[in-house]
Amino acid sequence: MVLAAVLTAPNRPIELQELPEPVLEKGGLILQTIYSEVCGTDVHLLRGHLGGVPYPIIPGHFSVGRVVDIGGKVLNLDGQPIQIGSIVTFLDVNETCNSCWYCLVAKTSTRCPQRKVYGVTYSSNEGLLGGWSELIYLKPGVKVLTLPEEVTPARFIAGGCSLPTGLHAIDRAQIQIGDVVVVQGCGPVGLSVAILALLSGAGRVIVIDKYESRLAVAKSFGVDDAIAIDDQAPQQHIERVLELTDGRGADVTIEATGVPIAVKQGIAMTRDGGRYVVVGHYTNTGEILLNPHLEINLKHIEIRGTWGIDFSHFYRMIQLLKRHRDQNREIAWERVISRFYRLEEINQALADVEQGLVLKAAIQPNLF
Amino acid sequence: MVLAAVLTAPNRPIELQELPEPVLEKGGLILQTIYSEVCGTDVHLLRGHLGGVPYPIIPGHFSVGRVVDIGGKVLNLDGQPIQIGSIVTFLDVNETCNSCWYCLVAKTSTRCPQRKVYGVTYSSNEGLLGGWSELIYLKPGVKVLTLPEEVTPARFIAGGCSLPTGLHAIDRAQIQIGDVVVVQGCGPVGLSVAILALLSGAGRVIVIDKYESRLAVAKSFGVDDAIAIDDQAPQQHIERVLELTDGRGADVTIEATGVPIAVKQGIAMTRDGGRYVVVGHYTNTGEILLNPHLEINLKHIEIRGTWGIDFSHFYRMIQLLKRHRDQNREIAWERVISRFYRLEEINQALADVEQGLVLKAAIQPNLF
Amino acid sequence: MVLAAVLTAPNRPIELQELPEPVLEKGGLILQTIYSEVCGTDVHLLRGHLGGVPYPIIPGHFSVGRVVDIGGKVLNLDGQPIQIGSIVTFLDVNETCNSCWYCLVAKTSTRCPQRKVYGVTYSSNEGLLGGWSELIYLKPGVKVLTLPEEVTPARFIAGGCSLPTGLHAIDRAQIQIGDVVVVQGCGPVGLSVAILALLSGAGRVIVIDKYESRLAVAKSFGVDDAIAIDDQAPQQHIERVLELTDGRGADVTIEATGVPIAVKQGIAMTRDGGRYVVVGHYTNTGEILLNPHLEINLKHIEIRGTWGIDFSHFYRMIQLLKRHRDQNREIAWERVISRFYRLEEINQALADVEQGLVLKAAIQPNLF
Amino acid sequence: MVLAAVLTAPNRPIELQELPEPVLEKGGLILQTIYSEVCGTDVHLLRGHLGGVPYPIIPGHFSVGRVVDIGGKVLNLDGQPIQIGSIVTFLDVNETCNSCWYCLVAKTSTRCPQRKVYGVTYSSNEGLLGGWSELIYLKPGVKVLTLPEEVTPARFIAGGCSLPTGLHAIDRAQIQIGDVVVVQGCGPVGLSVAILALLSGAGRVIVIDKYESRLAVAKSFGVDDAIAIDDQAPQQHIERVLELTDGRGADVTIEATGVPIAVKQGIAMTRDGGRYVVVGHYTNTGEILLNPHLEINLKHIEIRGTWGIDFSHFYRMIQLLKRHRDQNREIAWERVISRFYRLEEINQALADVEQGLVLKAAIQPNLF
Repeated sequence: MVLAAVLTAPNRPIELQELPEPVLEKGGLILQTIYSEVCGTDVHLLRGHLGGVPYPIIPGHFSVGRVVDIGGKVLNLDGQPIQIGSIVTFLDVNETCNSCWYCLVAKTSTRCPQRKVYGVTYSSNEGLLGGWSELIYLKPGVKVLTLPEEVTPARFIAGGCSLPTGLHAIDRAQIQIGDVVVVQGCGPVGLSVAILALLSGAGRVIVIDKYESRLAVAKSFGVDDAIAIDDQAPQQHIERVLELTDGRGADVTIEATGVPIAVKQGIAMTRDGGRYVVVGHYTNTGEILLNPHLEINLKHIEIRGTWGIDFSHFYRMIQLLKRHRDQNREIAWERVISRFYRLEEINQALADVEQGLVLKAAIQPNLF
Repeated sequence: MVLAAVLTAPNRPIELQELPEPVLEKGGLILQTIYSEVCGTDVHLLRGHLGGVPYPIIPGHFSVGRVVDIGGKVLNLDGQPIQIGSIVTFLDVNETCNSCWYCLVAKTSTRCPQRKVYGVTYSSNEGLLGGWSELIYLKPGVKVLTLPEEVTPARFIAGGCSLPTGLHAIDRAQIQIGDVVVVQGCGPVGLSVAILALLSGAGRVIVIDKYESRLAVAKSFGVDDAIAIDDQAPQQHIERVLELTDGRGADVTIEATGVPIAVKQGIAMTRDGGRYVVVGHYTNTGEILLNPHLEINLKHIEIRGTWGIDFSHFYRMIQLLKRHRDQNREIAWERVISRFYRLEEINQALADVEQGLVLKAAIQPNLF
Repeated sequence: MVLAAVLTAPNRPIELQELPEPVLEKGGLILQTIYSEVCGTDVHLLRGHLGGVPYPIIPGHFSVGRVVDIGGKVLNLDGQPIQIGSIVTFLDVNETCNSCWYCLVAKTSTRCPQRKVYGVTYSSNEGLLGGWSELIYLKPGVKVLTLPEEVTPARFIAGGCSLPTGLHAIDRAQIQIGDVVVVQGCGPVGLSVAILALLSGAGRVIVIDKYESRLAVAKSFGVDDAIAIDDQAPQQHIERVLELTDGRGADVTIEATGVPIAVKQGIAMTRDGGRYVVVGHYTNTGEILLNPHLEINLKHIEIRGTWGIDFSHFYRMIQLLKRHRDQNREIAWERVISRFYRLEEINQALADVEQGLVLKAAIQPNLF
Repeated sequence: MVLAAVLTAPNRPIELQELPEPVLEKGGLILQTIYSEVCGTDVHLLRGHLGGVPYPIIPGHFSVGRVVDIGGKVLNLDGQPIQIGSIVTFLDVNETCNSCWYCLVAKTSTRCPQRKVYGVTYSSNEGLLGGWSELIYLKPGVKVLTLPEEVTPARFIAGGCSLPTGLHAIDRAQIQIGDVVVVQGCGPVGLSVAILALLSGAGRVIVIDKYESRLAVAKSFGVDDAIAIDDQAPQQHIERVLELTDGRGADVTIEATGVPIAVKQGIAMTRDGGRYVVVGHYTNTGEILLNPHLEINLKHIEIRGTWGIDFSHFYRMIQLLKRHRDQNREIAWERVISRFYRLEEINQALADVEQGLVLKAAIQPNLF
């Protein structure tokens, strides 16, 4: 039997359950889980904020593990067969169908209606299809990558799902060398976006958050300015951005907060003709008032939503973790992980994430 | 003395005044006005909806006239000198400065802070700087184009300021051959956008308006579907668009209404990953509620404001009027003009535009 | 047994052979061929110009047929099952792998190393995997589309592989409303490109060819100018383009000739800062001399190669054929087909294509 | 009288001449030259490789000086008046006309036919319109920028004209985070491009040159791989790039050599579907053989010429020099200047540049 953490219904504590071992199909893989991320989305799952979730589920949509069994031959991207014992990761979106209008004609695969996500859209009745479990079963067709030696599992999980999500947002932002970039929110996604904006040649990166501790982390990664939101003076951070930008606002602003009013504020912080990327609203937290004349038409702005990731972001994330590990270019993603939790501590982990006590948490279901 | 129509203050009837003849500077031009447009913006000027207007003003920001005097040598785009007697037009934005950060670095000249518009941002105390006048004075530096023989003044004024505005919106929309395009609003801008969408190879062009008469005009120009808004069933036109698009919504939707709620509806009519262009909000008519999760982030949409026009849109508009005049490719823009008014009828003209009795009105200050 | 036309080796006459009926796999389809195109590429196959071709082959890479057997359930793009008796088409590129770096990271699937093409890269020993045959076997995974009622098989085959190829080239050309477009070559691809340029809102479409008959066809589809190449005055057509464009050259030039020197001439016909798309060089016909200073750097030009098509071009092609069939928008693609040949006339068909006696030829293996 | 270095005709030694002081016009400025660059283009001017040069000329197209006189009020980009005593720079292209089809419609101002360049397209008979002189006269309309305090004149001239040229090339290259970038040539432009590619988030930057000394400089700025061209094995550096890129070639290759054959080699080093930017061919050094099938069409490549710079590149260059001066982000551009020469040493300076003895040389006409 396999020990797994199961969320049986919204707002219920996670239960540890003993589930049957997976039956290996041709093309499938069985992983012994090394780490699985605890993400803000998992809090939304706990609170029942997402529609269409087939509770009970095994959460954990971003994971890394060691291959313990293979159903025949499964290939890496380079055409080489994956080996037992290898440390591999997999794209959480395993069934972008490559057969529908969105995948083939619109080429917007992150909106494929058949899209499935491990740890979110599979029931635990269907198998070990989430990362908070001793074993993970990779169904045939799930896209697998062997982790390069230079990238430790801890480094990979520290990047987490927020790093490829940030990459997608940065691609949408089309930063030119010298652009002033504001990042709203310094959680895992915002921090990834800020680091990637620096890497893209931004002329100034300004981050905004309400937690001083998160701003301090961002400063330690090299952002130029870290602005704390003052609840007593809710316009003050907007004014500060305008001061820093000759009164014009940023060339590019990227929202990574999940707070509706941040969208209105972010537009106010962006210059006429600038770009505004929304990547933080992965769940419905309400509406805002917008003025189409002042905030869209006259402003000549572009507002771009960014949903999900595809394989290219996942692949490039790993390349990035590999590149920026050495002395001259080091980006110390490992520091983003506040704590590793055992499977038995999962409710504590979720509570810590919900209360903002940790920047990023990971589950370590097996002892290595 | 020169007879001109002067708007002395918001909500006051236009007065005919006798103003002094212009003093010609080196590089300036004097035109005898042939036609000057009456535009929805003029209604906003009458009602005091626009900020920073230096009343009293001579309205009329899109005009065509015959050159009656020239201050030395003034050149066309092709380097040839303009001749007395020629029929010319001029870009209403005459002082995009080409010296500021917006013009030179951001290359967003329609947001140049020094930007000036004939008929809107000049006082009548400064001279004959609007089109509702027997003469128009073109200051040195105003960008002038001689109208090609093939484009009559009536055809040019029928295109009006809505045609280059529509071109700018279409450029922002980046239509690919086969795209389904929805145009919200069938006033002069919406109609221009719909015609240009057809010309761009759209696979289907759907227009929406509350006036059946406008929809009929759009149909006569070849749009595929014309949907009337039913006040008793305010979601019905959205549902109709979804029906026409396999439930997905349009690839591109372009707003040309000036009605805030149209922006919310337009997003609902656009497919995931589509583009939504806002070009109808030239004045402040209020706010809407938007949900950043559902309507931006999850939808993976791009929303693009479009302000003003630059010289390229003005130039290309004239080329377009010239191209589509003959038997095989004819687009009968002349039909868009409902009526020509004399200068003495200006208050009637404005009232007719305000009440939607005419599609497009033009002033004819001189008898030719 | 099934009658098929087999090209056993380069420069050998095509033989009619009796081949075994296909064995239907789960997910496979058997089609009774209605039409299969004879394309310039087939001449290259005959002459041995393409590398890596596994002779003997059944040529025919663009075909339409009636479903006579189905291996279980096979779905259309809209998720509906395909029916026996339906008329369907299929993308010739059936095994873009969706698993390699080119497909997933670079998103350049037409350069996928695993890419396979019916009628080109399959041997007749592998089955009925080409269109010049009474039956075609569609392997599991081949992307199938049911032809809409409004598009007859003859109309579809008249569009042929040149129409989606032209669409891909037009996408690369990024035509703006009013652009002057030159198309070099008026064979099936050039003609498609010219029609699509007109549909895209080009301000002028100029075609160039050495055959007056082809130019006449292009004129009948509405191009503005048709220029014949004069062998006695090989620069004359370049000078004519410059005359028609105020000495500047075209905004966009698209090459569809397969003649190396056309590339040099095409750059000369393109304005500084313009775009030059190469889509006619599907086989190696030699080199040209280019001057990097004069023809690339100083000219500030973009030169874009265009290889193959993906599913989006194939899908949009059918939508296009459907849209432009009626009275007001009709594009009479049917006229492009010069002649239908029976399977027994295949060598004649190839000879006619090679000698330029027909604009487009199609094989009709069964009598309906 | 003012001492200036005059190139009277191609292949003649530069002469020091005493020329009259400039007559200040309204809107003009007189600068006391601090530094003026000696660029590869100056060698081309000496050798008569450029057409349309009005010898005798005062070379020097990139300079910095102290304002000693002002004709009335001249404004900075921010609208503040320039002061006597300020240290300013100016865009060498001072008369992009903003009135022609290229400037206004095509928005390709670097190909404006009226474009003029200090130190290249003005005769010394017209005034002190080049930088190799004690004084420089800035005509009314020349675009001036006050140098920020944080950027010393030496740092500015070390960036030189190669830095904004490199920025333009990088903008054309559209580097995404993680792209592999090859830079051909490590002279001033190639080195700038390599540094900017690193700043843009390239996943690997590979430089190629024949001089080991230049490769060493590039390594000291952080490039990943430096490959020396071996004249005995002219394909070896191509093979090395393929080895470093899994056999595919670079995502982006940027040519900065001025050697025709480099263009053919560069295409061979670029992956299918990649981008190839040509920025090194500022003068005509001959032709190459290209195969349109293999090197353009099948390769599905984009080749982009890059001519000149506009004000945005000039402005952003200064912002970049300001940003990357401090401890954490320092880019030590000052190290690029090999030597400062007095006006009397100008022939020596040119000879040193021509022979590749210095990486970058600058003239210092006055002692400060």
